[in-house]
Amino acid sequence: MRTISTVILALAVSIGLAGSVGAQSARSDIEAALLTFTKAFNAKDAAAVAAHYTEDAAILPPDSPRVDGRDKIQQFWQGAIDGGVSDLALEAVEISESGDFAFEVGKFRLKAPGRDRNPVDQAGKYIVVWKKGTDGTWQLYRDIWNADPATQQ
Amino acid sequence: MRTISTVILALAVSIGLAGSVGAQSARSDIEAALLTFTKAFNAKDAAAVAAHYTEDAAILPPDSPRVDGRDKIQQFWQGAIDGGVSDLALEAVEISESGDFAFEVGKFRLKAPGRDRNPVDQAGKYIVVWKKGTDGTWQLYRDIWNADPATQQ
Repeated sequence: MRTISTVILALAVSIGLAGSVGAQSARSDIEAALLTFTKAFNAKDAAAVAAHYTEDAAILPPDSPRVDGRDKIQQFWQGAIDGGVSDLALEAVEISESGDFAFEVGKFRLKAPGRDRNPVDQAGKYIVVWKKGTDGTWQLYRDIWNADPATQQ
Repeated sequence: MRTISTVILALAVSIGLAGSVGAQSARSDIEAALLTFTKAFNAKDAAAVAAHYTEDAAILPPDSPRVDGRDKIQQFWQGAIDGGVSDLALEAVEISESGDFAFEVGKFRLKAPGRDRNPVDQAGKYIVVWKKGTDGTWQLYRDIWNADPATQQ
């Protein structure tokens, strides 16, 4: 009986560790993707930004219509870059993995031209639904954000 | 061999059906929750609206700070109701279940007082992360939305 108990315990520990490693992997993979996303954005490389999205991704920008598909998403971010948005920073507040999906709640900061065309700090919050591809890569699948209350400018 | 194949086929069909029934159940449960949510809102019952959220839920409203916890969420919706928001309608565009979580992408419409205090139609989009409780009930866990482009008023 002791042997069987030991085997069961060993199995349970293995499964527990595998679960932890899996969860850890999603978080670290997604955090790494956030870093390359912001790096691409701040290098004004909309194609590299868009490569972080699945082919069938959708973004839901505030005060704009929903944008479907990686090509259109690239055009959207190109427009933001051309419009002077810069210094993007993303912070994952919460990442929760469930099967081939994970959702992330995060905060962003960026600079955008104000009324006098000088860059103004903006901040906001977002939810991203991430999808794990067959190669194990996590990509943005659904992406929505909005602004925090306006700070004094 | 035929018997074993038949058993395997029967098992596969059972598992397939169980999967479908589970997915169907999440969608129909969530769609039912959306209906009681809007009914509660339009009856100006903020407590009944808040009861659709988990105790530890968070909402991320546009141009407002994040609101944490069911009690504070009730206060937020009470404020919206007192401020004259009415005629809420929600439409689930996409519901995807994964374990005890599901995410929903949706559209909303509502009326809110305009500059002359007369009700103005507004529309927007949202993502809700739903969480399944131990009793099998789906509740809103994370909720973010933003506005569509302003229509001529």
